Amino acid sequence: MRLTLAEPRYLKESVSIISELVNEAKLRISKDGIELVAMDPANVAMVIFKLLPTAFTEYDVEKPADIAINLANFRQILRRAGPSDMLTIELDSNKLKVQLKSASTRTFSLPLIELEDKEQKVPELSFPVTVEASSAIFNEAINDAEIVSESVSLVAEPGKFSLQAEGDLNTAAIDIKDSADAKITATEKVKAKYSIEYLKKMIEGSRLSDRVVVQFNKDYPLRLTYSTVDKVLMSFILAPRVDTD
Amino acid sequence: MRLTLAEPRYLKESVSIISELVNEAKLRISKDGIELVAMDPANVAMVIFKLLPTAFTEYDVEKPADIAINLANFRQILRRAGPSDMLTIELDSNKLKVQLKSASTRTFSLPLIELEDKEQKVPELSFPVTVEASSAIFNEAINDAEIVSESVSLVAEPGKFSLQAEGDLNTAAIDIKDSADAKITATEKVKAKYSIEYLKKMIEGSRLSDRVVVQFNKDYPLRLTYSTVDKVLMSFILAPRVDTD
Amino acid sequence: MRLTLAEPRYLKESVSIISELVNEAKLRISKDGIELVAMDPANVAMVIFKLLPTAFTEYDVEKPADIAINLANFRQILRRAGPSDMLTIELDSNKLKVQLKSASTRTFSLPLIELEDKEQKVPELSFPVTVEASSAIFNEAINDAEIVSESVSLVAEPGKFSLQAEGDLNTAAIDIKDSADAKITATEKVKAKYSIEYLKKMIEGSRLSDRVVVQFNKDYPLRLTYSTVDKVLMSFILAPRVDTD
Repeated sequence: MRLTLAEPRYLKESVSIISELVNEAKLRISKDGIELVAMDPANVAMVIFKLLPTAFTEYDVEKPADIAINLANFRQILRRAGPSDMLTIELDSNKLKVQLKSASTRTFSLPLIELEDKEQKVPELSFPVTVEASSAIFNEAINDAEIVSESVSLVAEPGKFSLQAEGDLNTAAIDIKDSADAKITATEKVKAKYSIEYLKKMIEGSRLSDRVVVQFNKDYPLRLTYSTVDKVLMSFILAPRVDTD
Repeated sequence: MRLTLAEPRYLKESVSIISELVNEAKLRISKDGIELVAMDPANVAMVIFKLLPTAFTEYDVEKPADIAINLANFRQILRRAGPSDMLTIELDSNKLKVQLKSASTRTFSLPLIELEDKEQKVPELSFPVTVEASSAIFNEAINDAEIVSESVSLVAEPGKFSLQAEGDLNTAAIDIKDSADAKITATEKVKAKYSIEYLKKMIEGSRLSDRVVVQFNKDYPLRLTYSTVDKVLMSFILAPRVDTD
Repeated sequence: MRLTLAEPRYLKESVSIISELVNEAKLRISKDGIELVAMDPANVAMVIFKLLPTAFTEYDVEKPADIAINLANFRQILRRAGPSDMLTIELDSNKLKVQLKSASTRTFSLPLIELEDKEQKVPELSFPVTVEASSAIFNEAINDAEIVSESVSLVAEPGKFSLQAEGDLNTAAIDIKDSADAKITATEKVKAKYSIEYLKKMIEGSRLSDRVVVQFNKDYPLRLTYSTVDKVLMSFILAPRVDTD
């Protein structure tokens, strides 16, 4: 197995984002790309990640390999990659070898770890609401809500998408109209509440794409998807906060 | 009442600066603009602020209103305004509504608070010394003095303005000559000492104007004034430190 | 004695770098320039510094003077120098006077201190290995090693220079070939280990020069040298870490 990236950015940013949600995870490296499906330790959020073979300049995988690693550890190594470094990944017995090539050749190795073998299944979800928006606008909305509360309600109806937060003192309401910046598909009016702490970690996906697809339903999980054609796909699923009053 | 700013900067920066000195304050909104006069909790410094109707693109005030708010709270909301956001303020029963408009419409509301009704009067002061200087040079002088001591003496005489600080170890003396950078008007030689901690907060007024007017007298309050024609005026009055030895 | 620098940068950066290793030190100011030789408090590292008379626009020294000062203190004052300030140093009885001249004239004085009179001698060292490299590449290598361990082994042989670090989990190896970026002179294969904590402080010398000369030997001190012709020379000597297993 030998994989080379001319632009380390997609792998570097992705691992950085995922490592904020998940400490240790299993990567499946196959002819289809590098894939990861993982739950956060609190079982509230799932991340689904895929880096496509077309993102690589060299993609040589004979047989699929499942490797478990410490993501914080992997991230620290990837951080050392400059924008013009050629990055190569290889498996070397029970180690993952990461090589950065520019004027010098820098080789890091990190140990593979044992990870309890529970296969993470991506739940099948269907959504009455899909908003495909500028990720800058969605980020701004989450950051607006954050100064007011620790949870935010997403509300959609045909032609309109809103975020609403209510704190002990202040309130915030962000209204986004159907436009080029935000294409709103909603068959009915739905409203659901989610944790801002988790959303803040997930909107880091905007480092991968300037568009985000937001999908949700009443008292139902939310899905955020960031993707770049032929390169990378990152989805997050977040459990709702259901008011018990 | 409905006030709209095309450039949120003046309000945003002003509230940010004032909130470092004062936690809660009363704003008077009238045909003359938005005005604030407040003392810091330690009764050492006063801030006098006025944002003129000409700073607004829409200024609709039928009858004057006194509203008391938490400034840190207000600041947090104003921080969310980007440079190209259209900012509108409205009164809505016992709430202040702040709306930011760009691709999305973001509406924040913060509660009005009760504030003990002591009218702050601006003291009448007269000064034998007035220095109208580049605020960059004055900032630099205060920052110079800070590395040496926690108080600084201001000294003026015809044609000359100095700042002097003496620490346990080091001393600093900043000499500024009468020039285009600093027009010095002094009828006699005067010297007075002030707290650097307070001055550091006050020189943030340089975010509003690249000129500052410095006025003081022997063992007498200091007044710093930052203003931009037709937009904003911010003055600070600071009690002197009188040596008791 | 009166010394003036049109570019305060060399003195400012040098004192900043040295003050991370040494708290108090003696400067010798003579016709040959300003010189400093000092050990760090733990006696692990030595710094040898020389600022040449040609770095100054005015260099008036009648008789040599040894002055001891607190470097953190001196650094704090030099930090106040902007890139276009004219910096003048004078001795004034038992004070060092530092003057910064631009639109204003800012004069700082700091006390000379008593320092135990042990003359620091620069040890005579001879090295079988000399690598003259881009300081950016060497910095990067030390920063790579840092994420893995707290010590790094330097290995050289004819045509090849490597840095190797081994942590509890990860390993890093940086291979640098003989090239324009790194001219390697090695008569034999040698390997020695050094503290990364100290190296991190020393590679700050790259603020003075974009080239570094690296010299070492088996279980023997390392010397790093940064210099700019006619301006400044800064060398560091670092004791090796000898494994006792």
